[in-house]
This record gives sequence, C-alpha cells and structure tokens, in this order.
Amino acid sequence: MVNTLPKVGFCGLGAMGGGMASHLAMVGFPIKGYDIYTPLVDKLVAAGGKAATSPADAAADVEFLILMVVNSSQANSVLFDPENGAARGLAENATILLCSTTAPKYLYQLRAQLDAVRPDVKILDCPVSGGSIRAANGTLSIFSAGPDKDLDNSKFVLEAMSGPLYRIPGGISMGSVAKMCHQHQAATNIIMASEAIGLAAVAGLNTKTVYEVTCKSKGRSWMFENRVPHMFANDWFTVHSAVSIILKDNTIVTTHAKEVGFPLVLASTAEQLYITGTHAGLTKDDDAGLVRLFLPKDKKDLTGELTESTTTIGKADITVETINDLLAGVHLASARECMAFSRHVGMDLTLLEDIINKGAGASTMFEIAVPQMVKSGSFSLKSVKEAAEVREKLEIAIRKAEKLHQPVPMAAAALQQIYYDLAS
Amino acid sequence: MVNTLPKVGFCGLGAMGGGMASHLAMVGFPIKGYDIYTPLVDKLVAAGGKAATSPADAAADVEFLILMVVNSSQANSVLFDPENGAARGLAENATILLCSTTAPKYLYQLRAQLDAVRPDVKILDCPVSGGSIRAANGTLSIFSAGPDKDLDNSKFVLEAMSGPLYRIPGGISMGSVAKMCHQHQAATNIIMASEAIGLAAVAGLNTKTVYEVTCKSKGRSWMFENRVPHMFANDWFTVHSAVSIILKDNTIVTTHAKEVGFPLVLASTAEQLYITGTHAGLTKDDDAGLVRLFLPKDKKDLTGELTESTTTIGKADITVETINDLLAGVHLASARECMAFSRHVGMDLTLLEDIINKGAGASTMFEIAVPQMVKSGSFSLKSVKEAAEVREKLEIAIRKAEKLHQPVPMAAAALQQIYYDLAS
Repeated sequence: MVNTLPKVGFCGLGAMGGGMASHLAMVGFPIKGYDIYTPLVDKLVAAGGKAATSPADAAADVEFLILMVVNSSQANSVLFDPENGAARGLAENATILLCSTTAPKYLYQLRAQLDAVRPDVKILDCPVSGGSIRAANGTLSIFSAGPDKDLDNSKFVLEAMSGPLYRIPGGISMGSVAKMCHQHQAATNIIMASEAIGLAAVAGLNTKTVYEVTCKSKGRSWMFENRVPHMFANDWFTVHSAVSIILKDNTIVTTHAKEVGFPLVLASTAEQLYITGTHAGLTKDDDAGLVRLFLPKDKKDLTGELTESTTTIGKADITVETINDLLAGVHLASARECMAFSRHVGMDLTLLEDIINKGAGASTMFEIAVPQMVKSGSFSLKSVKEAAEVREKLEIAIRKAEKLHQPVPMAAAALQQIYYDLAS
Repeated sequence: MVNTLPKVGFCGLGAMGGGMASHLAMVGFPIKGYDIYTPLVDKLVAAGGKAATSPADAAADVEFLILMVVNSSQANSVLFDPENGAARGLAENATILLCSTTAPKYLYQLRAQLDAVRPDVKILDCPVSGGSIRAANGTLSIFSAGPDKDLDNSKFVLEAMSGPLYRIPGGISMGSVAKMCHQHQAATNIIMASEAIGLAAVAGLNTKTVYEVTCKSKGRSWMFENRVPHMFANDWFTVHSAVSIILKDNTIVTTHAKEVGFPLVLASTAEQLYITGTHAGLTKDDDAGLVRLFLPKDKKDLTGELTESTTTIGKADITVETINDLLAGVHLASARECMAFSRHVGMDLTLLEDIINKGAGASTMFEIAVPQMVKSGSFSLKSVKEAAEVREKLEIAIRKAEKLHQPVPMAAAALQQIYYDLAS
C-alpha cells in the first residue's frame, strides 16, 4: 500500500512539538523530525518517524514544514541559519506552518525575510493551545490564519493535530493575535490561582476543600482547575508548563499593548508577578510553583495543615466564599480588559469568546460577563449587572487579606481598575 | 580678541536643547545649531549662534557635537543619515556628547555603529535632568560617563551647561543608568501627584491648602511641589514636560528591568497610568494634566470649590493628613524599589542617593528611608523604622478612598508591595 499522506518535516520536538510530531507519525504521516537535543529525535523515531540531522535535512523534499520552537529567535535560526537553515532547502511551493507562539508582527517580518530568499514558500500562522497531553492526542486548539487557498491545502495536516481548528480571518498575524488575546486570560488566571490558594493557606483553610468548592463556584477558571492539583503534588520540577513560558506569552501581550498604546493593568500586574518568580529563581519550575510567592513564611509547600485543616472560618474570617470573591473579582476585571484590548487590536470578538470559553482561558466570570458586554456594545463593566456586587465582595475580601498583611496584588489592581472603569 | 573657546555643533533645539544651545552661545561658545523645525534655529541665531542647514553642516569642523534629540532613533538618524548624517563629516577626533535620554544599552550600539565608520570619534554619555528653565540657565544636572581622558577634555563644555556635574564611574552607558535610576523616582512621583490631588478633590478638600501643607509634610516630593501648581493653572497646553516624555523615560526603566529580570511593581503601575493617559488622548499635554484621570466625573479641572472649599474633613473623613499618608506610603515603597533596582544594575548607590536628593526625584520619604536601608545593607523596608507606621496609615488612606470608589492604583500597588517586602 502506498502512503498518500503528504511528507512533513518537523523542527522543535519539546513537550509540545514532540507530542504533535509523534501523533502525526502514528496516524501515518511520513515525517522527519529535528531537535537540537537528540534524545527527543529518538522518541519520534520510536513513534514511527524518521530522524533529521539538521533543520535543512528536516525540510528537504517535504510538502509541509512545521515549526514548534520556543520563540521567534529560534524560528529565525532554524529557517535562516547559513549552514543548516531550512529555508533554502525547502521544496518548491512548500508550506511552513509556524505553530510557535510569537508576536503577531513577527509573522510579517518572517514573510519579508522569506521573500528575500524563497518567495515561493508559503507561511501559515498556526499557534496552538491545550498543553502537552492534547498535543500528543492530536486534539489541540489551533488558531490558523493565512491565505484561504493555503489553509485549504494544509487542512489535512492541521486537522490531524487539532480538536477545535479555528480559521481566524485577516491573514497571517491574526492567528497570533487570537493566541495573544487568549493568553491574556491564561496569564491573569494562572497567577490568580496561586494568589487565591496562597490566601486560603495563610488563613488556615483546608486548601483541598477550597479547591473542590471553587471548581463548582463563581471563582472557577480552567487554569484554577488545572493548576491547583499541581500545587497539591508539591512537585515543582515535573514541569507541565514552565514559568518562563507564561512569562514569554504574557510579554507578547504587554509588548503589543504598549506598541498600540493600550493600557493593560491586570496583564502588567501578572507580568510583574512572573518576573518576581523569575527573580526568586523559579523560572524553570512549573508555573503552579508560583504559589510559593504567597505561602506563609514558614511553609514551602501545601502539605500538613494546609490540606488537612478542619477550619471553615479561617483567620480574619476568611472562608471559601472569600477566596471565591477574590477570584471572581479578578476574573471579571480581567475579562473586561481582555475584550477591550481584543477589540482594539481588531480581533473577531465572537470567535474569541468561543475560543476562550472552550480553551484554557475560560472562567465562570468570563462566561457570565462577556455576553452582557457584547450585547451592550460597550466593553465596560457598567454593562454587567453583577459588577457592583462583585466589586463589593472583592473589597471585603481584600480587606480581610489586609488584616493578615497577605499580598493580593492581582485583586488590589483589579479593584482599582473596576473603580476606574465604573467611574469613566 | 580671538575667541579661544572650542567650536560646538548642536542638533536638537527643542525645549531642552534650545535653551542649552542658546546658553552656550550667550557665554561665548562659537556654536552652530540644527533642528528640523527652522524657527528653533532662528531662536539660536537670535541668541548669537549660527544656523546649520543639516546635521552634517552642524558637525563640520567642530570639536564637540552635542545631541539633544528626543530618542535613540532620532540620534541614529542625525548621525547616520546617508544624505546629511553628522558622523561622516565630523572633524578628526571630535567628541559627541549624547545628552538625550536613551536606554543604557543604546550607548554600546552607538559605539559599535560609529566604530564601523568613524572609530576616531569619541562618545560621551551625558544625559541631563532639571527641565527647560535650568537648561536655559546652564544649571542642569548632568550625569556624565565615558573614558576619563575624554571627560577631562569635555569638562569645559559640560560645566558651561551644568550646575551639578556628576561623573558616573563605569564608562559609557552608566550615565544613562544614573538617569534611568533617577527617572524611576521621577516617574512614580509625577503620577502620584495626580493621584493624591485627585483624591483630595473628590473628597471635597481645598486642593490649594492640601498643596501648601503637603509641601511641608512627609508626603512632599520635588515632583509634587513642581507639578501641582501646573494643575492649578488648568492649562494643559503650556507644556512644561509632556506625558509622552515621562512615558518614554519610564519605558526605558521598565524595559531595562525586564531585560535583567527584575520586578518593578510601582514603575509598572505608573507606566500603565501613563498609557491610560495616552489612550485617553493626553499624550502631548503637560504631564500635570493627568490629574484629569482622577477628577470627579463632572470636573474637568481644579477650579471652583476644588480650590476654594473650606472643608477640612472631607468625604469619608479624608483630611490633608490622609493625602499625606497616601503620598508617603507610595514614596516609601517606591524609594525601596528604586534602590533595590539600582543596586541590581550596578549603580553607585552613594552617588545615586545624592543625585536623587538634589534632583527632581527627591522626596521626604526617600530622604528618611534610604540612609536606613543603606546602613543596614538590605534594600528591604524591614530596615526602615517608620515602615510599619507608614504601612498602617496607607491602609487607612486606601480604605477611605475605597469608600468613595475613587481609584488610587499607585497606593494600592504600593501597599501590596510593602506586604510582600515585609513578609519576605
């Protein structure tokens, strides 16, 4: 039997790329993969792929070259390295699928660089979301953008790697814009999980109970559900997603916002917390490990009474409701910030709402508030009927944290932003 | 009589450069000046200088070329423009004095660019501080750095423009580091003046009384003293210093901090407020005009009851003491952040303390707290004996603002940072 699937080259076989490439091999794509770290290439070979000895080797004679490297600087090096770069060796009319998360404007820079040496080669902007398990299962969310004809031609490969496959209108860069807008929510919600569990711990609550209740309450977010169990594992070195990754993604958000002159108070507050983590030496750890920034001075992890306490009314009258009020307040302010920014950068808001609700940026407050904002056409909390109550409860939660001198920087920034938004 | 002063070329004759160049002309330097806006060149001619028709013309046959352009991109264009750039036409062994505020790393880039075409030309890193009046009087603070021999050779020109002339050790880029560390304080204190007067206004206090009392109290800063009178003038279009300038300077601070992985919560909060001002269309206005971000909804300026009220205990029990507590809390947290960052980037801290105390970054809390931190060798508020009291009063001030739903984002961020600092 002849394999009629197109030949694929793959560069970057890390936590995400390794799973994606192995999955393509397992479903029958003839695939050659390259990584600078050869044990990762061996894994692909074990899954049925072939080993490439360089980016140029991975690119030789393939119809599609998929890049899943860490950032734009690595993408440049893989493509344009004078010795072993992939660009020159690509087959006529081949298509590059850039799956890495990069700044939206990088896509234009890449197109221009490629035009100088290989104007025939096509680029599609295809960042992904969903984590390493969905990468390995071929069920990632993919935000694809580029010329319709090229997207049609690549559909088969993209579908093999994805569950939800989004086609973002507007050409290359808009896939990255979609990912950027999504990552705004991911970045604020990841650190918020640490801030909230830190407050619960300092108050002396049973953090496991707080987790269970919150997952069914208004403070729920996809990130809270996903990250808090990693905190209970007290293992920061099994890295599901490193601090460095969300810091990089968040920097793309804040840098883009600065370039277009748009204020992002919550994303900036989150960024400072990621940098605080970096400065404390936690860069390569799992991002759930940032809970340590918020733990009591004598605790290094969530063991002992922090998971076994029977207290239901903690210090300063903090309860599981307080923790939910804190989360809900931040998620509400962050949902507004995300949507206002996304509109400013020209993102299709209906599509974005769907992406976030089904993705890792989801939260109960986003689900509740965004339809009200969309309906009113104003990305202000004035259009959200729950806003005044959420604000009031956030005030109370912050005041309780204050009694313990426990930092809740995301909550404090969110409350200020809510005042500003409701007053203007 | 023969003029024995060295010939000077000058590029960039705006609010600062125009004054500096005219002053040099008036004290007898043979000077040729260029600006893209010719009426500014005419002003220099009226002061006794000569008109240059291009950067290359300004550079021809001079011993010193002074650049006082807006940013590094303009400096590059002035020096390296293929048609009229100054670099190629400079006399053998001429010295460039870069007085613009640029990122520290730009100095190295500039040296490398110059090495490619004019390795004989010297560069000194000489950013300034003090505003347009001191520029015109030749009494600026100048932070000079570079090879000692070149600084000695340029002393006469630098002294003609300066009051305090600092020589920052460490070579080029360290003058810009000194300016950057100083601007951290300038940036947080400028916006804090608006936040504090905004709260006083919303509470119904007589803002002029608040100003007078504060200038003699612990909430005092050089920026508060300097900017608040511009607020009373209610004229945002007589621009002493534009929002765009402090946003640019603050961006140099926050960008550098990100590059070295150092958290700057207060500078980042300030930056978001400057971007909020930009987004509200205030970019080109005087930076004192940012008080409008904090005024009651029905007020556009500080007239009427906001300056004439006889209330001494305002809404939510806010008094002039409350306003001082708010200022003092932010200045304290900001002083700590500035010193910890400055140490991280290798700035001479004794020199910096002197620069700030004598400069536009000065504040009473900086004066009180920094010697205690320096003495303890720890840039933590734990070494400052007033810290607990300042924190407590800041909490109360924020709670009062909260009752009015009045945003005090700098104060909220400062309090959270104080908790974090005192706990770690």
